[in-house]
Amino acid sequence: MKNTRVLLASRPVGLPQRKNWKIETVDTSDPGEGEFLAEVLYISLDPAMRGWINEGKSYIEPVGVGEVMRAGGVARIIESRHRAFEAGDHVVGLSGAQKFWVSDGQGVSKVDPALVPLQKYLGVLGMPGMTAYFGILEIGKITEGDTVLVSGAAGAVGAVVGQIAKIKGCRVIGIAGGEDKCRYITEELGFDGAIDYKSESLHRAVGNLCPKGIDVYFDNVGGETLDAALAQLRLNARVVICGAISQYNNTGPIKGPENYLSLLINRATMQGFIVFDFATDYAQAAREMSQWMADGRLQAREHIVEGLETFPETLLMLFDGSNQGKLIIKV
Amino acid sequence: MKNTRVLLASRPVGLPQRKNWKIETVDTSDPGEGEFLAEVLYISLDPAMRGWINEGKSYIEPVGVGEVMRAGGVARIIESRHRAFEAGDHVVGLSGAQKFWVSDGQGVSKVDPALVPLQKYLGVLGMPGMTAYFGILEIGKITEGDTVLVSGAAGAVGAVVGQIAKIKGCRVIGIAGGEDKCRYITEELGFDGAIDYKSESLHRAVGNLCPKGIDVYFDNVGGETLDAALAQLRLNARVVICGAISQYNNTGPIKGPENYLSLLINRATMQGFIVFDFATDYAQAAREMSQWMADGRLQAREHIVEGLETFPETLLMLFDGSNQGKLIIKV
Repeated sequence: MKNTRVLLASRPVGLPQRKNWKIETVDTSDPGEGEFLAEVLYISLDPAMRGWINEGKSYIEPVGVGEVMRAGGVARIIESRHRAFEAGDHVVGLSGAQKFWVSDGQGVSKVDPALVPLQKYLGVLGMPGMTAYFGILEIGKITEGDTVLVSGAAGAVGAVVGQIAKIKGCRVIGIAGGEDKCRYITEELGFDGAIDYKSESLHRAVGNLCPKGIDVYFDNVGGETLDAALAQLRLNARVVICGAISQYNNTGPIKGPENYLSLLINRATMQGFIVFDFATDYAQAAREMSQWMADGRLQAREHIVEGLETFPETLLMLFDGSNQGKLIIKV
Repeated sequence: MKNTRVLLASRPVGLPQRKNWKIETVDTSDPGEGEFLAEVLYISLDPAMRGWINEGKSYIEPVGVGEVMRAGGVARIIESRHRAFEAGDHVVGLSGAQKFWVSDGQGVSKVDPALVPLQKYLGVLGMPGMTAYFGILEIGKITEGDTVLVSGAAGAVGAVVGQIAKIKGCRVIGIAGGEDKCRYITEELGFDGAIDYKSESLHRAVGNLCPKGIDVYFDNVGGETLDAALAQLRLNARVVICGAISQYNNTGPIKGPENYLSLLINRATMQGFIVFDFATDYAQAAREMSQWMADGRLQAREHIVEGLETFPETLLMLFDGSNQGKLIIKV
């Protein structure tokens, strides 16, 4: 059996180019004792990938040049020499951007394809959903009646953040790019308001839609968006730093938040987090979110592109915002 | 009796100039029923004053053009028609930058000149000391063994922050301007290390002196200093935003912290605070700090300039760093 895989060929400067990737086909390895071999069905494309291919240690080791690109995937086990897994099992884990995956089972969980479609395990029940759940509840510490602002609101994380905040009784405003996305979050997801950053003044729109200020700002974007939110904080506000997609491809310095002294004036907190720290509670979160989905209170959509070889171009959709929902490649 | 007072004549752009102030002499008002008249002995000069004279509401109303400049002061009561105070009492409160003060007693506390010299009630036992105490303990949440970095370390707040952190068993590094200040904080105050920002590369020096990273950074300065600290955070670090003296006189935008995504990587928190929120606990804090002073574990020095009419020039010492200790005017 032949394995097709996406390797990091060189470190990008700015937006990743086709030349930064190498797609190759090699023989599939056999699983050793304590390992399994699985066929990867879907892989997840995430903004965090941009950080993983930079030089230097961050919260996780960078992907090395010449290595298979790190990616979360859903796979079906073909052959197992691992006592916890057997052929036919469906699993999620860091499969990498490849067709076949040999794993020792570390960080791998079984999933049930009868419960929800498999791709959901990369979205609302996967890393983005967990990020939303723990970020808004544990870091944002929302309580009923809070005004919550979320950027990247039509994205895989933001859409779940907003819906959880609605479930918890908050007033929720989302920032997204374009009319379609704004209509989606208000009409389909039930957000109380939307700001189209492509056609409105962010500062003015945030002020208009959050006239009493913001209790919790969940930031996926950084840059001007973060500054617009900081300008409208209420007393004791919480700013959740989840990501900064507007800054990931900068070739110059990151734009730091000019309005950070709003934290002082408003006795506010800005806090970062990494979803991996909550791994022991994923299962409980997935149960609660599955129940919300069953009750029709939480929905999510995926944007599925076919073919592993589209990886270099598909990844770029995250940065121009052209994906509509959780971006996934069907391998 | 004639009252000399310092009025805000116009709002400064950048560094406050002599022309932004008006010093005038007028008749002293008599205290009404429920008021007292006091002679102001010392007033406190604080970096926060720069914010108080900007237009627009912050955590406190701005000083109006034509109004007496807001200032904390120590005063001796001359005449009282207030049931809680009598002639001869020494008090602290927001006396304003003037020789005679009529007050209804709101926010005014009696102090004992026999316990410590009166000027200490504007420094280590006043707003700067309270800011240090609550900032490092309640917001910084220091615990034994933490590495604590403090900027403005020879200043009225920073010097107390560092000494409290030492008392609590932390390793403390201070950032200050010039050899004298660096020697003062290490040799007299017992800091474990000092960085002279005027002669060293901040980024390199912070890395060298905090090789395992920073658990708590107490920031009085902002700008490049904040970025240098953010670059060296440890997991779960706390960044206490107390002030940003490097940015207060900017005529352009504030420099936001480019390295704020270190909060994400390190699951760290950046939090602002205003000392006034802790007013109900001032007395307890003052008792504990007085005990530390009596035990020789906490010391503080004041830089006293004579004459209210020096106010416009004396204030500027805070911004060029030429004061050595808590800056006070002897009225």
